[in-house]
Amino acid sequence: MAFSERISRLKSSLIREILAAAQRPEVMSFAGGLPAEPMLPTVDWSAMPASVSQYGMSEGEPELRELIAAEARSLGLDCEASQVLVTCGSQQALDLVTKLYVDPGTEILVESPTYLAALQSFQLFGAQCLEVPQEADGPNIAALRQRLENHKPAFAYLIPTFQNPSAVRYSEAKRDAVAALLDEFGVTLVEDEPYRELVFDDYKAAPITSRLKTTGWIYTGTVSKTLLPGLRVGYLICSKELFPHLLRLKQAADLHTNRIGQWQAAQWLGTEKFQRHLAELRSFYRVRRDAMQKALEEHFGELADWNMPQGGLFFWLKLKNPIDTRALMHKALAVDVAFMPGEAFFIDPDSNPGYMRLNFSHVAPERLGEGLRRLAGVVREAQAANS
Amino acid sequence: MAFSERISRLKSSLIREILAAAQRPEVMSFAGGLPAEPMLPTVDWSAMPASVSQYGMSEGEPELRELIAAEARSLGLDCEASQVLVTCGSQQALDLVTKLYVDPGTEILVESPTYLAALQSFQLFGAQCLEVPQEADGPNIAALRQRLENHKPAFAYLIPTFQNPSAVRYSEAKRDAVAALLDEFGVTLVEDEPYRELVFDDYKAAPITSRLKTTGWIYTGTVSKTLLPGLRVGYLICSKELFPHLLRLKQAADLHTNRIGQWQAAQWLGTEKFQRHLAELRSFYRVRRDAMQKALEEHFGELADWNMPQGGLFFWLKLKNPIDTRALMHKALAVDVAFMPGEAFFIDPDSNPGYMRLNFSHVAPERLGEGLRRLAGVVREAQAANS
Repeated sequence: MAFSERISRLKSSLIREILAAAQRPEVMSFAGGLPAEPMLPTVDWSAMPASVSQYGMSEGEPELRELIAAEARSLGLDCEASQVLVTCGSQQALDLVTKLYVDPGTEILVESPTYLAALQSFQLFGAQCLEVPQEADGPNIAALRQRLENHKPAFAYLIPTFQNPSAVRYSEAKRDAVAALLDEFGVTLVEDEPYRELVFDDYKAAPITSRLKTTGWIYTGTVSKTLLPGLRVGYLICSKELFPHLLRLKQAADLHTNRIGQWQAAQWLGTEKFQRHLAELRSFYRVRRDAMQKALEEHFGELADWNMPQGGLFFWLKLKNPIDTRALMHKALAVDVAFMPGEAFFIDPDSNPGYMRLNFSHVAPERLGEGLRRLAGVVREAQAANS
Repeated sequence: MAFSERISRLKSSLIREILAAAQRPEVMSFAGGLPAEPMLPTVDWSAMPASVSQYGMSEGEPELRELIAAEARSLGLDCEASQVLVTCGSQQALDLVTKLYVDPGTEILVESPTYLAALQSFQLFGAQCLEVPQEADGPNIAALRQRLENHKPAFAYLIPTFQNPSAVRYSEAKRDAVAALLDEFGVTLVEDEPYRELVFDDYKAAPITSRLKTTGWIYTGTVSKTLLPGLRVGYLICSKELFPHLLRLKQAADLHTNRIGQWQAAQWLGTEKFQRHLAELRSFYRVRRDAMQKALEEHFGELADWNMPQGGLFFWLKLKNPIDTRALMHKALAVDVAFMPGEAFFIDPDSNPGYMRLNFSHVAPERLGEGLRRLAGVVREAQAANS
C-alpha cells in the first residue's frame, strides 16, 4: 500500500490508548484530562431553535463568535468577532495551524515538555521542533533568545497558563519577555489556553497575545474544560491577516462545527450562570488538588519532586531516581491504576526519563490514597529491579 | 509570512462563498445542497443521557457504529462495527483520506466532473488528479482502464449514486466493471455516498464496495442529507488494514466527533421512524424535482440539455451554446438568483465551459419559475454579449 509520506510519522495518541485501557470501571485513572463527571452541568436543550439543524457557516455561529470575542477582549486581546473561528475542540485549531504552517522540515518552537497531542499533530506533518526548556515560572528566556537568533521558526507554540503537562504558569516578567522576543524576531505566537479558567488563586495573568505589538498571533480556547467536552466546541482567534487562510482550511476540513454544541455553548458564555458554574468548578477542583497534594506527600514524598499546581488539572512529578515510566504503564494498569508517562511530552523521550503526569480532577478523593499507594508500589518495584 | 507550501494551493470553497452571498432572504438559491427546511425533522433531546457530555472515543459512539455497520451490511458491504469511524460530516472523511494518501504529486483518480469540495481537499495536499470522463451511466470504462494501465493512482474517488454535480447513477454493468478493474489493478476505492437514500425510483444499486473482491476500500456516508446537517455527523467504513491509520488521523484532527449529534443520529438510524421520514423525504423531493423539470423545460428548453435526475439534489445543465458560467454568478446574484457554475467541478475549468448545477430541493415551487426565468435571462444576455 502506498500511503503518504506523513503516515510514516503517524504516532498513536498515547493519551487515547491509555484512556481506552482505563475505561474499565475498576481502574483508578490519573491519566486523562477528563473533567469530573459530577461537575458537568445539566444543560437544557428545550429552547434550541429548529434553524440550527440546517447547514451553518464555516466561521461558526455569529452569536457565539461575538461572545468569544467579548470574553477575549476582557482578557486584553484586541479583537473582533470577525477574527473568531469556531473549531471542533481546540485540537482542531492545532490541526489547522499545522496545515497553515508545516511542511516536512519546517522549524517550529515549543516548550519542553509540551502538550503531547500538539506534538502529534506538528510531527505528523513533519515539523522540526526546537525546544525551549520549561522552568517553574515559564521558559528559559536566554534559551528562547538563542533559538530565535539561530533559527527562523514558523511559529512558537506556547501554553503559558497551567501548561499541560507541567502545570507551569508563566510569571508576568516572562510573559512580557516572551512577547517582546516574538515581536523582535517577528515570529507568530500560537497561544493555547484551555486551562485559563481553572485557577485556584486570585492571580489572573493577561495572555501573552495581549502583550504583542507587531507580530502575528493565534489564540486558542475551548469549552471542553469549563462546560461540556462532548459538545466538541473550541475556537481560535487570530490576527486579521491569518483569518482567511484558516477559514478556508476549516472549510476543507469539515465545512463547519456542529451547530447544536455551538448553540449550547452560546447559552453559557458571558452569563452569570456560567460565572457561578466556574466558581463552583474552581472550588471543587481546589478541594481535589489539595487532597491529591496530601496523598502525594504521603505516598510519593520520598519518590518524587513537584510543585503544587495553582490551576489546571495536573500534577507533574519528577522522580528523584529517574527511570523511564513508559515501562510502568502496563504494570500500573495491571493493578488498576492509569497514569500518563511524562516522557511522551518531550521531543526526545529517551533523554528525559522519570516524569509522570497525574490528573487530580477525575479520581474521587476516597479512592485517591489507594490509587497512589499502588502507583508508588509500581515505581518502587521497578526502581528496585533497575538497581 | 512563511506559510506551508500547500497554502499556495489553498482555494476558497466556491460553494461556501455563494452560500454566504445567498443568505439574503430575497435570494432564490439553486446553489447549495441544502435540505429543504420544512423536511428537517423535529428531534427530541429530552432523553439524552448526561454521560454524552463527557469526552468520548475517537472511533465514535459504540451504539452508532453498530447501527451504521448494520445498515452497510444490508447494502451488501461485508463489515463490522469495528471498521466504522464516525466523522465530522463526510467532508472530514475526505480530509482523513487525503492525509492518509496524498503527498505533493501523488496521483489519484477522479470522475470528470467531480465533487468540488473533494477536489479542494485533494488539491490542497498537492494531488495530481487523473480524470475519467463521466457518461450518463457512469465513467467511460475504456478511459478508466487506460488510466489504470498507465498510472498507479493512490486511490479512485468515485460518487456512483447520484453524483454531485452530474446526478449520474452508475449502471449495474459499470459498477461491476469498475469493481473488476480496481481489483485487477489493486487500486483502493473511495466510494462517497451521501445521496443513496434520496432516490425517486425503485432501483437500488448495490455499492461498488460490495462488489470488490481483493482491493482496499473506504466507503463514506452522512446523515446530513437524510436527517440534520447541523449535527455534523458523517462516517467512513473501511477495509480492516486501513482502520488503525484513519483512526489515528482522526485522533490528531479533533479527538472525536461531537457526542450529542452522534446520540441523536443513533435515535434514528435503523428505526421505522427513520424509514417513514425517508419515505416522506423522497416524496417531497420527487415533487420538487418534477416541478423543477417542468420549469426548466419552460425556461431552459432552448438553452441547455440535461437528464432528469432519478435521485440526489441536483440538475446538471449543459448549455447548447457554451459560455463560462462563472462569469454569470454575480450577474445572477444581482437579480437575486444563486446557482453553481459547473466549471468549478472540473480539474481544468477553462476547458469545460457551459455547465450549471441547479439544486431543486431548496427553492419553494411557487418561486421556482420566477427564479429560472431570471437565470435564463442572465444566460441569454451573456450569450448575446459574447456573440
